[in-house]
Amino acid sequence: MQFTIQQIAALLHGEVRGNGSEPITMLAKIQDARKGQISFLSNPKYEPFIYTTQASAVIVKNDFVPRRDITTSLILVDDPYLSFTVLLEEYHKLINYQKNGVEQPSYLGEGCTIGEHIYRGAFSYIGNKVTIGTNVKIYPHAYIGDGVTIGENTIIHANVKIYAGTQIGKNCELHSGSVIGSAGFGFAPQPDGTYKTIPQLGTVIIKDNVSIGANSVLDCATLFGDATVIHEGAKLDNLIQIAHNVEVGRNTVIAAQSGISGSSKIGDNCVLAGQVGIAGHLTIANDTKIGAQAGISKSISEAGQRLIGYPAIDVKAYFRSYAVFKRLPDVIDRLRDLEKQVGIEPDGPVNITTPGE
Amino acid sequence: MQFTIQQIAALLHGEVRGNGSEPITMLAKIQDARKGQISFLSNPKYEPFIYTTQASAVIVKNDFVPRRDITTSLILVDDPYLSFTVLLEEYHKLINYQKNGVEQPSYLGEGCTIGEHIYRGAFSYIGNKVTIGTNVKIYPHAYIGDGVTIGENTIIHANVKIYAGTQIGKNCELHSGSVIGSAGFGFAPQPDGTYKTIPQLGTVIIKDNVSIGANSVLDCATLFGDATVIHEGAKLDNLIQIAHNVEVGRNTVIAAQSGISGSSKIGDNCVLAGQVGIAGHLTIANDTKIGAQAGISKSISEAGQRLIGYPAIDVKAYFRSYAVFKRLPDVIDRLRDLEKQVGIEPDGPVNITTPGE
Amino acid sequence: MQFTIQQIAALLHGEVRGNGSEPITMLAKIQDARKGQISFLSNPKYEPFIYTTQASAVIVKNDFVPRRDITTSLILVDDPYLSFTVLLEEYHKLINYQKNGVEQPSYLGEGCTIGEHIYRGAFSYIGNKVTIGTNVKIYPHAYIGDGVTIGENTIIHANVKIYAGTQIGKNCELHSGSVIGSAGFGFAPQPDGTYKTIPQLGTVIIKDNVSIGANSVLDCATLFGDATVIHEGAKLDNLIQIAHNVEVGRNTVIAAQSGISGSSKIGDNCVLAGQVGIAGHLTIANDTKIGAQAGISKSISEAGQRLIGYPAIDVKAYFRSYAVFKRLPDVIDRLRDLEKQVGIEPDGPVNITTPGE
Repeated sequence: MQFTIQQIAALLHGEVRGNGSEPITMLAKIQDARKGQISFLSNPKYEPFIYTTQASAVIVKNDFVPRRDITTSLILVDDPYLSFTVLLEEYHKLINYQKNGVEQPSYLGEGCTIGEHIYRGAFSYIGNKVTIGTNVKIYPHAYIGDGVTIGENTIIHANVKIYAGTQIGKNCELHSGSVIGSAGFGFAPQPDGTYKTIPQLGTVIIKDNVSIGANSVLDCATLFGDATVIHEGAKLDNLIQIAHNVEVGRNTVIAAQSGISGSSKIGDNCVLAGQVGIAGHLTIANDTKIGAQAGISKSISEAGQRLIGYPAIDVKAYFRSYAVFKRLPDVIDRLRDLEKQVGIEPDGPVNITTPGE
Repeated sequence: MQFTIQQIAALLHGEVRGNGSEPITMLAKIQDARKGQISFLSNPKYEPFIYTTQASAVIVKNDFVPRRDITTSLILVDDPYLSFTVLLEEYHKLINYQKNGVEQPSYLGEGCTIGEHIYRGAFSYIGNKVTIGTNVKIYPHAYIGDGVTIGENTIIHANVKIYAGTQIGKNCELHSGSVIGSAGFGFAPQPDGTYKTIPQLGTVIIKDNVSIGANSVLDCATLFGDATVIHEGAKLDNLIQIAHNVEVGRNTVIAAQSGISGSSKIGDNCVLAGQVGIAGHLTIANDTKIGAQAGISKSISEAGQRLIGYPAIDVKAYFRSYAVFKRLPDVIDRLRDLEKQVGIEPDGPVNITTPGE
Repeated sequence: MQFTIQQIAALLHGEVRGNGSEPITMLAKIQDARKGQISFLSNPKYEPFIYTTQASAVIVKNDFVPRRDITTSLILVDDPYLSFTVLLEEYHKLINYQKNGVEQPSYLGEGCTIGEHIYRGAFSYIGNKVTIGTNVKIYPHAYIGDGVTIGENTIIHANVKIYAGTQIGKNCELHSGSVIGSAGFGFAPQPDGTYKTIPQLGTVIIKDNVSIGANSVLDCATLFGDATVIHEGAKLDNLIQIAHNVEVGRNTVIAAQSGISGSSKIGDNCVLAGQVGIAGHLTIANDTKIGAQAGISKSISEAGQRLIGYPAIDVKAYFRSYAVFKRLPDVIDRLRDLEKQVGIEPDGPVNITTPGE
């Protein structure tokens, strides 16, 4: 990127103190920034750095008054941290939107509606009757099945696979190797122990501003007319499993290698740490925070809880119990001492051995 | 699909009551079905819906006698649920088998034997000396290495990667991004702490009617002549790890994100829930059911057990112990009270703290 | 492969006893080997097989003196096991390096530097300004972004995705479907509950002799100039998650489905079993061994520990506590008996139930 300080201030609805015509090419932390870079000052404990920084510009709060000489230009805004994150996202878009045009060979089916400023990488495949919005970037080896719709500014990285009928919103980012709309895991047991495949006829709907991590899998819904839904602003990390008919709420964040079983509904603003498992047909209340490797086997109806363990319980309760768990052999010793003291002959001794591993 | 009620009855060896010439285009639940759709009635509690359904046809048991007027046609069969699952599977095949012919560019090596009614998507790659049965569908970006054999009616979805020498049976479905036959994780430790790669010279054999989920990985066997084997009718979900020399028994079902370590043999008709881990070189008896996130560290020799936890134990025993685990701080308090009561000075106090997370 | 016994002896700096001109085409265990195959004798308990083996050659220790007649040729070396592993690795290279030349269609960007003896499979994509060393093999559907460098003898399997700017060393092997350099999971929370994307501007550095398993994901570092680093000789299995700014030490081995959260540093010569989770911003000392499904939530500063559980503790302590855990209902019964004995009325009864599953 290359913008002037004045252009960046305009984007942030801020005011320049200093040389607005200086060019900016990169973002950096205030203690690391160099000439041509922009930083921000939000936490007062970093204020000393503003007097020594080599940054060409620093975003500061409206009421900031330097107590010493400064060499950097300032951009005055309401909330420097928020303004910097706006800038981060703009920069993210800039670097992702550099690609344009069509590389060959690539495959384009019939009856498609394709917006402007599109990138279609070599070996990308677009089926029939696909609708692609303005400024969408489709990297090499992406597969987009028949009838898919993709909203403007969405980035489809190398090798993403999108099955027929999937709907994807605006400003989304689908990372490499993710699979969207694969058949859910549905089989009807037969009396002889075999299974017949239940066709998975539904679809996947990904709303605006969603991110899906590399090699994650989102299965389509089972029934025609139904959808697995990822609501607006949700962020999913790598290697995540989303089974058929799941819903993930708005602005919910799911860390890597977690899995949500069929038909479970995760609320808004939840946070799932890594390797979490959620059983099927559950409802998880808004603002639930689930710790790493936890297993959820019952619905959570009260919002704002913090859970861990398997089956998951309140995080503080878990750690209190786990503290005792680690000393259980001592507990047994104390129990035996007590039994001796009161003259009870232990009839159910606990056998403590370390199994071979 | 578009069939008449009569044609569907013939497929199910059933008998029509009503207008057999009416067309059917979709399957649906009896309470949701509309004109042109077919449903079934198996559970008596759903019988009231048969008098109000808009379905064009309902599959019912031979001895079903309506107690009121009905507007839908009937197909009389021995077992309505089973007949409906037959129909589901047929429908599943129909929608998957619509694709035909060869899209370009695609790559076909030398010396291949290719059956009829094949679909080969754009950017699909077929190496040398590959054998592909009738009606096989190979979606875009699939990779099929040298010498692979694929049985009739098998569906290879977009981006499936099949290494050289793999054998795949009939009526299988391999979902997007799955990797079949990658090198197992085998390294020989050296005195200086480094590892040398042990070549993985075996193969993978997938028998008939097997399903492999999206982004799952099946490693080949280590030695030339050996195979990692998925037996007939097994169903594997997404993001599963199958290490070298594993065997998965007939009609065994494995849910997403589970992993089986090298050389373990899983019996027939087992059910592994999500995120299960099985250590290496174990044998798991038939009909074993393993709960979500369980870790199996020893062989299971008795068939039909239900296990959970790490290391896994009987599911009822686990939940009984876990119920106490959740109250362990209370247990400690009670133990202390007892010690006071009998005059013991606690010499091994259990320190209960909540660690920072 | 086809080499003479004499050629193999030269490779191993060994000495031939017998017919050095006989051809060898395969490696095998001493008890299984046939004519044309080579084996080794290291463990004395296998010595009887050397008198009956049909192997054309056996690698033995320098001081080995047959006590009976043998028909096989011998290669005398310092350490037969090590020599055999050298041979295994050479064989591994041979079978992987058979492919040569360029299949079409394939895509090659501008300004690339490509070494000799390269294989570029059909539908492989190489961006601009890529540097590829001698003898590198790039299988079909691989994607290599702009500015990537790949050292000599490295194998890039079908469908590996390498993002722009990644650096990969010599003698590495990247298995099918692995994603190297995808954007890390970084989002800046906003007051309205939404998140803004933090651009991930760093890269991934993979040093020499590293193996990355199928469908594993390695995210790039967050800041420009930083890198996620896999150090020399590390071996990563399938479906592993390596988050942004992680470092994995030399010769560390990580089994399938494990995940390392952002900015954690794993030491040298560590062994992580399957499905392990490591929280973010931790440091794990050298030679740490972490058991299957363990969760690490604190840094490990003492080298050589063996850990398991969540949060992980010493493996022996865990199993001792788990032995008591399995008998906790008995513990409660004994506690109640004691309470009765000393006349305490239980005021905090532990409710033991088996929850519905």
